[in-house]
Amino acid sequence: MASRMLSSTPLAFSSLGPALQSSSIGHLRAQPKPSGRSYGSSGSVAAALATGLICRQASRARRSARANASTTVLSKAEKLQVPGFLVNNVDIFIFDCDGVIWRGDSIIPGIPQVITQLRAQGKRLFFVTNNSTKSRAGYQSKFTSLGLDVQPEEIFSSSFAAAAYLEQTKFKDTGKKVYIIGEKGISEELDLVGIPWLGGEGDKGKEPNMGSGGKVDVDHDVGAVVVGFDRHINYHKLQYAQLCLNELPGCEFIATNMDRVTHLTDAQEWAGNGTMVGAVSGCTGREPTVVGKPAPLMIDYIAEKYGISDRSRICMVGDRLDTDIAFGRNNGLKTCLTLSGVTSEDELLDRVPRKKGTEGHPTGCLRRHHQ
Amino acid sequence: MASRMLSSTPLAFSSLGPALQSSSIGHLRAQPKPSGRSYGSSGSVAAALATGLICRQASRARRSARANASTTVLSKAEKLQVPGFLVNNVDIFIFDCDGVIWRGDSIIPGIPQVITQLRAQGKRLFFVTNNSTKSRAGYQSKFTSLGLDVQPEEIFSSSFAAAAYLEQTKFKDTGKKVYIIGEKGISEELDLVGIPWLGGEGDKGKEPNMGSGGKVDVDHDVGAVVVGFDRHINYHKLQYAQLCLNELPGCEFIATNMDRVTHLTDAQEWAGNGTMVGAVSGCTGREPTVVGKPAPLMIDYIAEKYGISDRSRICMVGDRLDTDIAFGRNNGLKTCLTLSGVTSEDELLDRVPRKKGTEGHPTGCLRRHHQ
Repeated sequence: MASRMLSSTPLAFSSLGPALQSSSIGHLRAQPKPSGRSYGSSGSVAAALATGLICRQASRARRSARANASTTVLSKAEKLQVPGFLVNNVDIFIFDCDGVIWRGDSIIPGIPQVITQLRAQGKRLFFVTNNSTKSRAGYQSKFTSLGLDVQPEEIFSSSFAAAAYLEQTKFKDTGKKVYIIGEKGISEELDLVGIPWLGGEGDKGKEPNMGSGGKVDVDHDVGAVVVGFDRHINYHKLQYAQLCLNELPGCEFIATNMDRVTHLTDAQEWAGNGTMVGAVSGCTGREPTVVGKPAPLMIDYIAEKYGISDRSRICMVGDRLDTDIAFGRNNGLKTCLTLSGVTSEDELLDRVPRKKGTEGHPTGCLRRHHQ
Repeated sequence: MASRMLSSTPLAFSSLGPALQSSSIGHLRAQPKPSGRSYGSSGSVAAALATGLICRQASRARRSARANASTTVLSKAEKLQVPGFLVNNVDIFIFDCDGVIWRGDSIIPGIPQVITQLRAQGKRLFFVTNNSTKSRAGYQSKFTSLGLDVQPEEIFSSSFAAAAYLEQTKFKDTGKKVYIIGEKGISEELDLVGIPWLGGEGDKGKEPNMGSGGKVDVDHDVGAVVVGFDRHINYHKLQYAQLCLNELPGCEFIATNMDRVTHLTDAQEWAGNGTMVGAVSGCTGREPTVVGKPAPLMIDYIAEKYGISDRSRICMVGDRLDTDIAFGRNNGLKTCLTLSGVTSEDELLDRVPRKKGTEGHPTGCLRRHHQ
């Protein structure tokens, strides 16, 4: 059923499958040679389930894959010739948003149909974004404005991931507060779980007194600094975070994500949350606990919530090898690379070098750093 | 003569000597046990040449020391019992400023006398600071305001180091411009060597258009981004640097220094230039060429300018093991640790752990990264 419906969409597509098949099918099958990058032209998730590339690789233990996350090689790809193969073997689809569901404020063609069809087959869907500027409620509004019917509990933004991490680790029991570098997505999510916070949008435009005897006073009850994307980053915020992390014993350093660049507008790439996190690391010498992709928090959360023991029945659908696909592979999921975003087919197949900044993630970003 | 004059100043002092003595004297001699940290109380450079600790370590080749810069162990210290030993064997003294010459806007007691006495003996003096917010002219004004007669050519600020590096590498011949994250020290030094620049203080308060189709336009003639301490750091500047470094072929990334924290006021430690550099590294994945301490540029420059082949006749005088003393040792200099600043005698002798952020420099900071 799915394959019939979906195969009517003739766009390019590739999919990377993880540790699910026997190693004997881990080779590259013949595939068409597109003339160039499909970004911005033909790729879509609809296409994903129609015709494209599927990559499978010899099985390895999930834990081992996690430990070697930074060195995972994605060298074996196969075109997805029979979409039903993927759909029938997956219960949960996790969709990256930027470059998969939308580009900027435009929906990628075919997406509404794919979502409708997968729902009709009883698949559970999640929508994931490392962009922390909105809460789940904020993202629901964006989905609605694009004509998609998506519920808040189906959305996993990195702002929610930060709140979920603090819940998991029983931060509220400490009676401490969170200092936020970031936008309202984080503060809205913390409000929902009842964790007190300061900073965030309220510190926009603040300038510390750097005259003789000047200083920034910090609240000594801060027990964690959460760093998300912040277009109003300033020296006051960075000094506040520095003092918390360097001078308050046990203060945690949490990053929503480490993305170097992000797609705020279609006109160019923008400095991502790696910028804000790098600044805080640069004055503290500390590495953060990362809660967004490619950290495993979200998968653990979904697997636990829905009692999923066989993670090979979850499929991560994304547009980037270095984030989405690495994330899926490192967590034992099936993975599916659309050609609608960052990684082109030529890059997937190593016919051209990957674009700067998409070569891979630095060591450590894939792991949690507990104090 | 020197020892007689200087020994009249009875303050605490320690000195670390590098690869100059035979390995047989590289052990720790008996020393007094001060009750606590001397910061802010008794330490001074005057004291340095009177009574204190001197550390000598088994010889190693300078080049080898540089290559292993990040792992240098400073475990062997001796008190300087005979100040003349140091003074008579040194032609050039290089003084760190913050914590050695001044703290904030106050001169450290004894400094004017030490400088006068060393000059009277024909020693050549240099004053080094990683603070890039002032040019050499700006620092001369500060010395004058403290009653010290110091010439601009005796001052080696990291803002000047950036200009000197660009001169050394013949950047002007490329016809390119420099984008500055930083304050007026850098732009003033670039003006003096005739290198065109943009950014710097002119980009204070700028906010990019992040609406639909919005972007930051960069000058495609930018050939280097220089990052210094900038209390008006903002997202526009970081996005500009990101675009230059990620999208302009061959664009260099130069950091005045990597100091995690700095002493803008006496009231607390402040997020240092490691913050600004970390932000730019975080969105580009690139490591900078570092021109200030502990990079060897300044020593190369002074040694070349004054025809010094025996670097053991240069002594680095500083207050921090992780920056000043590491810097001296990694460049084959004699070194002298005052107890007037960051590192206490207890830390020097490993009786207590070093303060957070002073444990050492991350790998890579001590090396130049050429493209």
